Amino acid sequence: MGQVIPENYTDLFEKQAFGNLGTLMQDGSPQVTPVWVDYDGKYVRFNSAKGRVKDKNIRRDPRVSISLQDPANPYRYLEVRGRVVEITEKGADDHINKLSQKYLGKPVYPFRQPGEVRVIYKIEPKKVSSMG
Amino acid sequence: MGQVIPENYTDLFEKQAFGNLGTLMQDGSPQVTPVWVDYDGKYVRFNSAKGRVKDKNIRRDPRVSISLQDPANPYRYLEVRGRVVEITEKGADDHINKLSQKYLGKPVYPFRQPGEVRVIYKIEPKKVSSMG
Repeated sequence: MGQVIPENYTDLFEKQAFGNLGTLMQDGSPQVTPVWVDYDGKYVRFNSAKGRVKDKNIRRDPRVSISLQDPANPYRYLEVRGRVVEITEKGADDHINKLSQKYLGKPVYPFRQPGEVRVIYKIEPKKVSSMG
Repeated sequence: MGQVIPENYTDLFEKQAFGNLGTLMQDGSPQVTPVWVDYDGKYVRFNSAKGRVKDKNIRRDPRVSISLQDPANPYRYLEVRGRVVEITEKGADDHINKLSQKYLGKPVYPFRQPGEVRVIYKIEPKKVSSMG
C-alpha cells in the first residue's frame, strides 16, 4: 500500500524545489542527482530521458528515494522513499513542458537534445519523512 | 585510488550549497537527506550525530553519493560518489561549529540536542560527475 504525502508538505511540490533523487547503480551503490518533480496526489513524478544513468538504474531496480528542501527554508524538508511503479513515454513531452513552466517559467522545455526520448517515472511513496 | 574534485567546482564547497547525501538502508534501498558539507582538498566531509539513520547506514555500508547544486545556478551541479573511509568523533564539535558559521553565520551550532554525539564522515571520491 502506498502512503500519502502529508498535506502540510504538499506545498513543496508547488514551489521551485528540486528533488534530489537517489537510485541504485548496478553494484548496488547509491547515485544522487537533482530532478524536476511534481505530485499528482498519489504519485511523486519526475521526468528524465531514456538511456541516462538514472533511467537504466530504475529499470534494473525501481527502489528510489527523493529529498525536497523548501526554497524558503532549507531546514524544512521532505524525504519520500518508495518504488517507481510506472515508467511511461506517454504524456512525457507534455509533462516536461509543464515542469519547464513550473521551474523556468517557459512553456516549452528548452534543453531538449536531438533524438531525446522523454520518460515519466511515477514513485509510489512507501515511507515519508519530514523535518521542520 | 581517490579522485580529486575538479578545481572549477570546488567553489561549490565554499558556498552555502547543501549536500544531498545518498546512503543505503539495511535492505539496500537508497535514502537521501540534506547535509552540511565541506571539502578539505582530499575528502568531502559532512557531520551528523551518532545513532541517526544515515549514521547506522554508513557504518553498515560505507558507499555513498552526494549531490551539490550551485545556489546561484541550480543547473550547475556536482555529484561525488565514493566511500566513507573515516568516521570520527575527534574534532567533530569544532567541525559542526565551522559548518554552522558557513551555513548560518553562527559560530556555535545552535541545534544541538541533549546527549548528542557529533561525528565527522570523510568521503573518498571515486567518481565525480558535473553538469553546467
